[in-house]
Amino acid sequence: MKNKNPSKKKNKKRVNNKGLAPGSVIFTGDRKMEYTDIHFVRFDLEKLETEDYGAEGIVEFLAPIEGKVTWYDIRGIHDTKLIEKLGVKYDIHPLVLEGIADTEQRPKFDEYENGVFISAKALRFDSLTVEIETEQVSIFIGKNFIISFQEDEDDLFVGVRERINSGRGKIRTRGADYLGYALLDNLVDNYFSVIDKVDEQIEKLEEEIIKEPQSGSKAKNHNLKREMLILRKAVQPLREAISKFAKSENYVVADSTGIFLRDLYDHTIQVMDMVENYRDVLTGLQDLYLSEISFKMNQVMQVLTVISTIFIPLSFLTGMYGMNFDHIPELKHENGYFILLGVMATITVGLLIYFRKNRWI
Amino acid sequence: MKNKNPSKKKNKKRVNNKGLAPGSVIFTGDRKMEYTDIHFVRFDLEKLETEDYGAEGIVEFLAPIEGKVTWYDIRGIHDTKLIEKLGVKYDIHPLVLEGIADTEQRPKFDEYENGVFISAKALRFDSLTVEIETEQVSIFIGKNFIISFQEDEDDLFVGVRERINSGRGKIRTRGADYLGYALLDNLVDNYFSVIDKVDEQIEKLEEEIIKEPQSGSKAKNHNLKREMLILRKAVQPLREAISKFAKSENYVVADSTGIFLRDLYDHTIQVMDMVENYRDVLTGLQDLYLSEISFKMNQVMQVLTVISTIFIPLSFLTGMYGMNFDHIPELKHENGYFILLGVMATITVGLLIYFRKNRWI
Amino acid sequence: MKNKNPSKKKNKKRVNNKGLAPGSVIFTGDRKMEYTDIHFVRFDLEKLETEDYGAEGIVEFLAPIEGKVTWYDIRGIHDTKLIEKLGVKYDIHPLVLEGIADTEQRPKFDEYENGVFISAKALRFDSLTVEIETEQVSIFIGKNFIISFQEDEDDLFVGVRERINSGRGKIRTRGADYLGYALLDNLVDNYFSVIDKVDEQIEKLEEEIIKEPQSGSKAKNHNLKREMLILRKAVQPLREAISKFAKSENYVVADSTGIFLRDLYDHTIQVMDMVENYRDVLTGLQDLYLSEISFKMNQVMQVLTVISTIFIPLSFLTGMYGMNFDHIPELKHENGYFILLGVMATITVGLLIYFRKNRWI
Amino acid sequence: MKNKNPSKKKNKKRVNNKGLAPGSVIFTGDRKMEYTDIHFVRFDLEKLETEDYGAEGIVEFLAPIEGKVTWYDIRGIHDTKLIEKLGVKYDIHPLVLEGIADTEQRPKFDEYENGVFISAKALRFDSLTVEIETEQVSIFIGKNFIISFQEDEDDLFVGVRERINSGRGKIRTRGADYLGYALLDNLVDNYFSVIDKVDEQIEKLEEEIIKEPQSGSKAKNHNLKREMLILRKAVQPLREAISKFAKSENYVVADSTGIFLRDLYDHTIQVMDMVENYRDVLTGLQDLYLSEISFKMNQVMQVLTVISTIFIPLSFLTGMYGMNFDHIPELKHENGYFILLGVMATITVGLLIYFRKNRWI
Amino acid sequence: MKNKNPSKKKNKKRVNNKGLAPGSVIFTGDRKMEYTDIHFVRFDLEKLETEDYGAEGIVEFLAPIEGKVTWYDIRGIHDTKLIEKLGVKYDIHPLVLEGIADTEQRPKFDEYENGVFISAKALRFDSLTVEIETEQVSIFIGKNFIISFQEDEDDLFVGVRERINSGRGKIRTRGADYLGYALLDNLVDNYFSVIDKVDEQIEKLEEEIIKEPQSGSKAKNHNLKREMLILRKAVQPLREAISKFAKSENYVVADSTGIFLRDLYDHTIQVMDMVENYRDVLTGLQDLYLSEISFKMNQVMQVLTVISTIFIPLSFLTGMYGMNFDHIPELKHENGYFILLGVMATITVGLLIYFRKNRWI
Repeated sequence: MKNKNPSKKKNKKRVNNKGLAPGSVIFTGDRKMEYTDIHFVRFDLEKLETEDYGAEGIVEFLAPIEGKVTWYDIRGIHDTKLIEKLGVKYDIHPLVLEGIADTEQRPKFDEYENGVFISAKALRFDSLTVEIETEQVSIFIGKNFIISFQEDEDDLFVGVRERINSGRGKIRTRGADYLGYALLDNLVDNYFSVIDKVDEQIEKLEEEIIKEPQSGSKAKNHNLKREMLILRKAVQPLREAISKFAKSENYVVADSTGIFLRDLYDHTIQVMDMVENYRDVLTGLQDLYLSEISFKMNQVMQVLTVISTIFIPLSFLTGMYGMNFDHIPELKHENGYFILLGVMATITVGLLIYFRKNRWI
Repeated sequence: MKNKNPSKKKNKKRVNNKGLAPGSVIFTGDRKMEYTDIHFVRFDLEKLETEDYGAEGIVEFLAPIEGKVTWYDIRGIHDTKLIEKLGVKYDIHPLVLEGIADTEQRPKFDEYENGVFISAKALRFDSLTVEIETEQVSIFIGKNFIISFQEDEDDLFVGVRERINSGRGKIRTRGADYLGYALLDNLVDNYFSVIDKVDEQIEKLEEEIIKEPQSGSKAKNHNLKREMLILRKAVQPLREAISKFAKSENYVVADSTGIFLRDLYDHTIQVMDMVENYRDVLTGLQDLYLSEISFKMNQVMQVLTVISTIFIPLSFLTGMYGMNFDHIPELKHENGYFILLGVMATITVGLLIYFRKNRWI
Repeated sequence: MKNKNPSKKKNKKRVNNKGLAPGSVIFTGDRKMEYTDIHFVRFDLEKLETEDYGAEGIVEFLAPIEGKVTWYDIRGIHDTKLIEKLGVKYDIHPLVLEGIADTEQRPKFDEYENGVFISAKALRFDSLTVEIETEQVSIFIGKNFIISFQEDEDDLFVGVRERINSGRGKIRTRGADYLGYALLDNLVDNYFSVIDKVDEQIEKLEEEIIKEPQSGSKAKNHNLKREMLILRKAVQPLREAISKFAKSENYVVADSTGIFLRDLYDHTIQVMDMVENYRDVLTGLQDLYLSEISFKMNQVMQVLTVISTIFIPLSFLTGMYGMNFDHIPELKHENGYFILLGVMATITVGLLIYFRKNRWI
Repeated sequence: MKNKNPSKKKNKKRVNNKGLAPGSVIFTGDRKMEYTDIHFVRFDLEKLETEDYGAEGIVEFLAPIEGKVTWYDIRGIHDTKLIEKLGVKYDIHPLVLEGIADTEQRPKFDEYENGVFISAKALRFDSLTVEIETEQVSIFIGKNFIISFQEDEDDLFVGVRERINSGRGKIRTRGADYLGYALLDNLVDNYFSVIDKVDEQIEKLEEEIIKEPQSGSKAKNHNLKREMLILRKAVQPLREAISKFAKSENYVVADSTGIFLRDLYDHTIQVMDMVENYRDVLTGLQDLYLSEISFKMNQVMQVLTVISTIFIPLSFLTGMYGMNFDHIPELKHENGYFILLGVMATITVGLLIYFRKNRWI
Repeated sequence: MKNKNPSKKKNKKRVNNKGLAPGSVIFTGDRKMEYTDIHFVRFDLEKLETEDYGAEGIVEFLAPIEGKVTWYDIRGIHDTKLIEKLGVKYDIHPLVLEGIADTEQRPKFDEYENGVFISAKALRFDSLTVEIETEQVSIFIGKNFIISFQEDEDDLFVGVRERINSGRGKIRTRGADYLGYALLDNLVDNYFSVIDKVDEQIEKLEEEIIKEPQSGSKAKNHNLKREMLILRKAVQPLREAISKFAKSENYVVADSTGIFLRDLYDHTIQVMDMVENYRDVLTGLQDLYLSEISFKMNQVMQVLTVISTIFIPLSFLTGMYGMNFDHIPELKHENGYFILLGVMATITVGLLIYFRKNRWI
């Protein structure tokens, strides 16, 4: 239950951060890995260089080269020294560096003099806990270079890397802005698989509620609604960010990239549509659950009422003739017992007809 | 239940698509037909040529001719090779081709250098399953030519085709943009028949709930709400798309077509209004259902309470005089039994008056 | 129930209309009268001519005259031939003619080269069926002429006609645009009387629910909500239409008419405010109804529980001493019966105190 | 109940008004006073003239004088002749005069050639009926003059009048526009006291519902919600009106007044915020009420179930041994009675443990 | 309960304030401290002067000096004389002074000729009463000077003060506008800790409701919702205010400060997102609570119904054979008792099977 709450870590950070000057690079997340993993890629259409720096670290970041795309992919953002070093080398604004290290950063797009900065969330659905996990991803796109940051060592951009390696598609022929778009596209494509898994959960819940509402159904519904809030929190600002990216007139963004970004923007709208749809469906399920419970209770009450209404008067009659008064004339009557049985049968049949007419049975 | 979920197929696609370069033409739907059906129409005011290419396929696409409208209507979009071939011939942007083959594309309007692209959903109401089925429709309008794509072999545009054949109306005197408008108008007209059928379902449900709420009513309501979400998902973005189309200053769209597109835009607003209305009505029905159940339960409880409140004290009295104590003076009283009957009658009448005053009976 | 559904007729039309060229004049409503009634009025400040053409029909429409206002008021729109004839005479765009004959047209304002077109709904509240009936009204305003269409022979514009006849007010001194404004103003004034009647219904319902919620209250509430949807559907687009009218820079609209149109626009806002208010009130009533039912049920349950909780243990005791065991010492006790009565009295009093403390009685 | 309905009077008016030319000055309210009370004030920094015309009436309105502010404050708006006379003297547009006499006018701001017109609502909270009463206030601001209208003889502007008399503040040094601002500011300040009283009512209701929901609580909540609708209806359009006033470039509005109007605009936003807050709180209270009732019912049901579940089986056992069969072996057993008592005790204890585990007791 | 209501004090003020000229400086809050505490700071990169004036007061405010930042931090705003004196010295508009002394001021940003004014709320979460307390903070930024006001003597800006003292960060190198930003940033950072504490409360409530809904849960939920309203009321207008600040082209705001203000603006959006999220979560919890209660009641009812339905008919049978009729043949039957026991067992088993099938047990 604890982990699910999105503001848990946030506040921890803010407490630490308070009173510090803005632009101070403070790591605010849980340290997810031992050391910082740095992947270097530099390519143009002809040539591709790659280098991986692991535990042993990096000595010196290479400067970008005109006509080639230089990509540093940093995994692990707890090493604020390293981030600051990179910041100096590539002349990155302190607020960007602060944003990179702040794992609770809201997705956003900012323009700076020497490039643009995009912060986004990578999502992963954990089927076991039925929870969506978020990972902070930051991308800085400059002229001829791009720097990306991931929280842990799993590579979110494996598809893009393969396309670069194989030389497939346009990726090797275009600039750093197109590579930035490709990374974001990769991320957004991932959202669809997360939604797919959430969708399965919703469908299972839907069947459960229609067939037989369980005690746990309402809590499941509540949890799924919370997951939707997390999804929305990740996607909605990203949509705005990509819209700004697509409209950006920054010199590092080529006009020809715009059409791809607009397409990506359409995808984020689609994700938001789906999230809103699911929220509506979940609210509908909530109502359905309550209706089911009410309907069932009504049926239970009808059974109780039918049984009670028939037998309570009959029992009263038996009580009557179970009394020990000295003079109860009916008791002396020879067929008294059988006459009473007849009366009881008549009452029962009458009530049954009444209930049938009222559609209770 | 499975099919109804709109994101089912979507995700399948995205998983395949992931890591691929944008602009890759990947078919994402269920293959709905064996081969691709191609219908060729070329006309001006005087002359009309038509040609159908079925299973045997097409050898070479014809280039558009100045002063005539050339229309390729492709049914079946699983043959991505064919789509790419057409794309090369007519110089269509890769993102358009990707969009054509993606059956989960959100309706949209995009402008390109040599034409405009509209993607929409055709809707069909299946009365048996009470479900709305969607079919992806894509239209590319260039100067003197138009290319349309449908998912299966049923012709959605049969009305337009007849008007072309008969030479009725303005369609033969105008350009490809007007033909594009006519196709969309055809599609939107269809929405009204779908809404008609949904409307019948809602009315039936309304009568059912007002007359006698059934166990299944709430699930029906939930399903109809979901259908409304599907409708909205198809119509809302289409509305925006047509608005953009109407405002487009692309050279392939003649000014005289604008007024028709604005009229079409008014129709999509009308559809959205109706969809929103039905959503409101369905929410109202949900509330009505709950009220009915509550009201009915209240009545049932009142019956139970009236019966119980009258007979429980009476039964207690009979129990009293059914006890076997040696000394119960009342039992010896000569008219004890009759006095007790009188007391019971008094209690009963008193309670009945009380209930009447409280409007319980 | 059937009639109330707004989309009933709509769809009938659309099915017929499908596949037809846009601009085809097709009557889509229920034929409300036998023949078409045409009222001709022509006036300037000095002179007033009127002519009524009934069953015998009209031979030739008169052309407008510079410096006078010519008004054709057509009642009955099923005669599409006549409408087309008029369209040719006054050079009216085919889409306008289509709109006139389409009784399900959404209220709108369109500008054309030779005039402006406004489509609106006249409303009438039928107190018997508690339903709002709508009638399609179309007005085309040209230079020096105005053509209006009503669905049946009842004159919606009787007030305006009287002002023209009497020469009261500014109406005879101004152009066709001011007459058009006067007709719309008449229509909107009518909305207030409809709202007045709906308001009475709501107040009656409110009293009913506060005093004693009936079985039918919830259905009444549901119906009134639907009426509100009809009202909103008529007024909301009209508001936009009048706003466009007021801002129109079409040469047929004089600047001096603008201030009156803005005033009319304020009235439509007022109607919308009231409609939204009533929707809020009706939603509140729905909640109130449910609260009342819940509260009442709670009270009923308390009575049942109090009665049961007191008498069930007592009855158990009488059962105890009604048993036929050979050896039940209490039964032999001389004052056993009276002691038991005392015990029972104690239990009863104890329970009553407990209930009082829990505020159940 | 009747009075509370805001559209009651409205409709009466509209019926009378219908068919009349726009600009006809028709009084639509309830006549609140016998005669029209006219208060004349004229001041500049040095000199202050005042004159009150009561029952005996006014002979001739004085024309405004350059360099002084002339203020006519008319109380009682049923004398339409007088309003028209004033209209002629001060050259006021007929639509303004119509607006002044229409007590159901929506708050608004309109610009005319020779001045600006503001219509607003004064509010008063009647603690007895727990209802908000509205009074129509109209202000016309011209160059050097201001005319205000109130519905009854109580002076809403007593504070402003005092400031003029005493020469306190800037009011005597500034023009008619600043005086207009001062009047509106006075009105809006009043809203805060009304909200204060509503707030008290809400707090009382809140305490009542949290402590012990009453039968009347839900109706009170419903009434307060309706009052909120009245408040919103008065404030929301006024906010827009004041915003337009502040942005007005009319020559009668001095630039230096703008900053005060923007401040006033902030106050109306604050009022709207509070109204929306209270609506949220009232909706929350409604939910709380329902929760309380449900929770209470649940408790009642548990008591009933516990009692019934314990005693019904026990009573069955006593019934068993109260039967008169010739051969019931247990009855002959010497300690049968005591053994049965033991069995009953065991059952009771067992059930109590079960209930405790289920947290029912 | 009393304190929580945000408009309590507000209205008190407004009553006092009524009839006063706008711009009158009236203290409207509760006097939170004995005397006014004044903290003076003046710095440039090289030099830092500070001075604190406590109970003994200040003789003369110092004028700002070109090239240095002069900061007066006033704690305690009940001394309106002092505020007016400061206003005269620093040439501050009367509406600003009124705003400073009005503790119920809505957060806002206003531009004046010689500076900009920001009013905001500092928040503090009182864990004991589970209530958010607000404190009015006003900041006036001029060229080379800044004046801040706090309601009590606790320093909200301790972090900023430390940074100035230590010379850390950019604060000493920049102007008064940057200092103003730093103060606001400090305030907003504080919001996150408040949200953190609210979040803890919500999580505790969530666990409580999922595990076992308590009688007090619904009131807690209601209270937390009210706290959310207070938060929103503080943050939403501040967001707008900061947005205006960031876009301000006032000469006292340096361009280089804009990027920091936009970053701060992003933080306020983040706070608002979280507040909206929590509101959604709380609404979800409310629904969950009601579902839990309904579900539990349904279970209770099922137990009652099962017990009743089994035993009521059995008890009837025992009643039958407890009657004292002279001739009841079954009673004479030798094995009558055992046959009856068999019949009863059969009934019981039958009913149990029925209930199992209906999933009641």
